[in-house]
Amino acid sequence: MANRLTFYIFFLLCLCLGLLCVVFVTYWNAVWRGGFAWDGSSLQFNWHPVFMVTGLVVLYGFAAVLYRIPYTWRYDKTPWKLLHAGTLLLAFIFSILGLCAVFDFHNANNTPNLYSLHSWIGICTVALFALQWAAGFSAFLLPWTPVDIRKVTKPLHVWMGSIILVMSIISCISGINEKLFFVLKANVNGTRPYASLPPEAVFVNTFGVLIVAFGLVVLRILYNLKWQRPDPSSDVTSISHSPPHCGTG
Amino acid sequence: MANRLTFYIFFLLCLCLGLLCVVFVTYWNAVWRGGFAWDGSSLQFNWHPVFMVTGLVVLYGFAAVLYRIPYTWRYDKTPWKLLHAGTLLLAFIFSILGLCAVFDFHNANNTPNLYSLHSWIGICTVALFALQWAAGFSAFLLPWTPVDIRKVTKPLHVWMGSIILVMSIISCISGINEKLFFVLKANVNGTRPYASLPPEAVFVNTFGVLIVAFGLVVLRILYNLKWQRPDPSSDVTSISHSPPHCGTG
Repeated sequence: MANRLTFYIFFLLCLCLGLLCVVFVTYWNAVWRGGFAWDGSSLQFNWHPVFMVTGLVVLYGFAAVLYRIPYTWRYDKTPWKLLHAGTLLLAFIFSILGLCAVFDFHNANNTPNLYSLHSWIGICTVALFALQWAAGFSAFLLPWTPVDIRKVTKPLHVWMGSIILVMSIISCISGINEKLFFVLKANVNGTRPYASLPPEAVFVNTFGVLIVAFGLVVLRILYNLKWQRPDPSSDVTSISHSPPHCGTG
Repeated sequence: MANRLTFYIFFLLCLCLGLLCVVFVTYWNAVWRGGFAWDGSSLQFNWHPVFMVTGLVVLYGFAAVLYRIPYTWRYDKTPWKLLHAGTLLLAFIFSILGLCAVFDFHNANNTPNLYSLHSWIGICTVALFALQWAAGFSAFLLPWTPVDIRKVTKPLHVWMGSIILVMSIISCISGINEKLFFVLKANVNGTRPYASLPPEAVFVNTFGVLIVAFGLVVLRILYNLKWQRPDPSSDVTSISHSPPHCGTG
């Protein structure tokens, strides 16, 4: 009972942090960065962080912890699988829209694409996500996939899922940091420089910390074996095949 | 046997990636960034990435996977604990030197400290590392700490250890990305801008990818239960207290 209560505290924390991330990224771009458009201007760029954070971090994280909710354990797994895959598909569509926003903006302004380290890590993350979704669909949703294939695939699926989340957070933090250096410069429309920590800088730095906190809570939920969906018919863990056996430090 | 072989392949990959990271960060700063000094100039700043990557990523990662080496399992754990703690202490000293390098550079140039998102995440990482080292020392090296305390502390210790590694990689990537935007500007001493992907940009972006790859390999080694040091006297895993029980997808 205490275990379940602890889970729900973490789950609530996960939900709150995720929603806060969406509120922060939307408010930042709507209010401080001038709002949104789809016209090749910097207002189109503003969709990029909103779509990436909402899709590749928040929706992705929510989808990842779905199976850990004890409430879902009393029901057949199939609808939850569909919800997991559906939420991730939505997250993927958001990521593609986020990429379109920044590519269009770059192309309209004759800026090269994919030159920064942020963009290298980011594009690898989205590519891995696409592969992961297709592999997950083939392994776990196609009814004719043999159970043995699922057993072998599952630890890798969970592992790749975590890797993609970590990489998406790395991409987000490096991108937000870069954006703040770009826009918070002295003598640009009366803007105070980033180094003087104007209110926008404090707000967006806090937003970055929230993203990291959200990611860590999601990973904490994923890797606590006590919180995994019980399945007495199988001895396969989400992390490895063998039973745990380890010292006390 | 196949399991052990796979471990050693991953371990070798971990060693190679770690050493490559040290070579890349040193070469970048020694050759492209003009070398090293301790005089408040940008040459002093150059120590910052070298110390942080070598300490907070590479030495830290090596120390983390130490217990997973099957060769060490046949011996008493105490010397390996001392090596683990000693390597981490060295990693911590490197981190402090890295912080001194950047603080001195900022102070000498009247630049504020700790304003960027990179620095916020970075300073939290080093603070958590200090806490983690002190807590680990108290729990696992002081001989009078009760075994029960060790059992309770260990999953948290492993978890915090992974979190700190993830946070240090986030800090590194955001810092490297920021540095490249700072130094690769058009018309500054004939430098080609970052957006035109000059050789330095390709080299350092590749270095960033190597850091991420190193971190993911370390985490893969840490979280494969099959690769944990066996200890039949205990049922405590490094991740959680309960046995694994989970579905097949």
